[in-house]
Amino acid sequence: MTEEARTPRSCAVIGLGSMGGGMAASLLRAGFVVHGFDPNPAACARFEAAGGRIGATPAAAATGAGCVIAVVINADQTEAVLFGPDGCADAMPEGAVFVSSATMAPERARSLAARLEAGGRHYLDAPMSGGAARAADGSLTMLASGSHAAFEAARPALEAMTATLYELGDAAGQGAAFKMVNQLLAGVHIAAACEAIAFAAAQGLDLARVYEVITKSAGNSWMFENRIPHVLEGDYAPRSAIEIFTKDLGIVLDMARSRNFPVPVAGAALQMYLMTAAAGMGKEDDASVARLYARIAGLALPGAAVPDQG
Amino acid sequence: MTEEARTPRSCAVIGLGSMGGGMAASLLRAGFVVHGFDPNPAACARFEAAGGRIGATPAAAATGAGCVIAVVINADQTEAVLFGPDGCADAMPEGAVFVSSATMAPERARSLAARLEAGGRHYLDAPMSGGAARAADGSLTMLASGSHAAFEAARPALEAMTATLYELGDAAGQGAAFKMVNQLLAGVHIAAACEAIAFAAAQGLDLARVYEVITKSAGNSWMFENRIPHVLEGDYAPRSAIEIFTKDLGIVLDMARSRNFPVPVAGAALQMYLMTAAAGMGKEDDASVARLYARIAGLALPGAAVPDQG
Repeated sequence: MTEEARTPRSCAVIGLGSMGGGMAASLLRAGFVVHGFDPNPAACARFEAAGGRIGATPAAAATGAGCVIAVVINADQTEAVLFGPDGCADAMPEGAVFVSSATMAPERARSLAARLEAGGRHYLDAPMSGGAARAADGSLTMLASGSHAAFEAARPALEAMTATLYELGDAAGQGAAFKMVNQLLAGVHIAAACEAIAFAAAQGLDLARVYEVITKSAGNSWMFENRIPHVLEGDYAPRSAIEIFTKDLGIVLDMARSRNFPVPVAGAALQMYLMTAAAGMGKEDDASVARLYARIAGLALPGAAVPDQG
Repeated sequence: MTEEARTPRSCAVIGLGSMGGGMAASLLRAGFVVHGFDPNPAACARFEAAGGRIGATPAAAATGAGCVIAVVINADQTEAVLFGPDGCADAMPEGAVFVSSATMAPERARSLAARLEAGGRHYLDAPMSGGAARAADGSLTMLASGSHAAFEAARPALEAMTATLYELGDAAGQGAAFKMVNQLLAGVHIAAACEAIAFAAAQGLDLARVYEVITKSAGNSWMFENRIPHVLEGDYAPRSAIEIFTKDLGIVLDMARSRNFPVPVAGAALQMYLMTAAAGMGKEDDASVARLYARIAGLALPGAAVPDQG
């Protein structure tokens, strides 16, 4: 297969988990030829069943692709996908674009972009919002920044994967910065929601009624409305894990400190995620912060086992 | 005028400011005879122009009223309206109801109710949500608790003043507790919104674009959406003042401490309101927390004068 045969309607997706698998499926439905890579055989099997073709390495999947989308967890993994052993960077055709979806510090995004662009490929800084369901039906939100050429090379694939594409600047790092502002708020709001529902429990209030009243009041947030049902149902199966916010609020605190900028409210929230992780719930749903308050204070929340207080 | 002539379609409103004046006007429109009291002559003049009748003291306004609504700032003022010199309590007919709208600790509400009920009057614990516009058009939300008799005595007046009436329990204190859960969240969310928008400014982002993106993302809150326009417009005329949250988060922290219950996120937010008040902005809009961050970090926000950093 020649490069010409695979670009520009040929894409690669590196990382075929709950998000990447859905995004690859959206691309397949839109008529793209999609090569994929994932170290997990089960993820590869699902992708092949949907019509995708597996590459043995990130480099193999990216060979000849006009657009390579990395759906991994953080900056280190993104760097490994690009520049590690069997990485994509040298395998990508000149003029192809790398779309980075991981949440990371703007400085890391700028650094990865500069290194890739030096080799004649484009870099789109495109962290995303929306869960697995929206990945699967092609209705993600992306907070993207990059050169005009990067946007143009990625646009057909972006249209297949997103319902809302914010074009936030002409260089890598701006998409990442917008995402970190969102994560600061999201992280504080989940911690505040958990603190408030546990405080309400400590006051002896009917928690279902608290949810009803708050979601119609000025104290509401998107996260309160979305996460508190997990607490009311005692269901801490991870939709998004505590570890996401120890990571993301950690990045916010690092970014702020590097500019001598204080973020005390985000700092307090980060400590609550760290306490929850320290208590053994790092891989559980981020609403587990409410369980931590319940355990500390000996409150009965649904599904939150209370340790012996004697 | 006899008591019989004034009850039950006779009300009193104690406190005729931006909230109480609007509530009194809603009662007048609904056909109530409304007596009012306010130490401010301008507020009295507006009330009389709308058809109200002034009483020289709270006791005079409450004489013969079936329902007395106190629209004052805190528990101490509410206690003075009831039991201070020229207070309402003894002037109210037996069987009349006192509707307390101030935000206060549940324990204070329970104490005031017990004292009033011992004299044969009813007490409705009814903190409210919604600003002056909703007070004026009779569409407030009230978070109310009290005896069946208190609700029944107050119901005609409540219907004239509210669009949404939550009936949250059969004793004073429960309405107050629900309100404090809301204030915990509202206070944290305003502080977080201000921290996030200042953090975004420190990152050099286009703040109008941040507002657009966040209000459509998972980081949104009712307060972010409502307050950040004040920051973008540099307009810190007080719609709701910093001092409201030094008071209300202070109550939250006191309630929590009295039960050995930790609220570290609310605690961090309270410190930001205290810092903003300490910097001379206690009577300005609560979005002034963003100005404090800007002053500390030497950021240029609209309308937030940056002190000389030399």
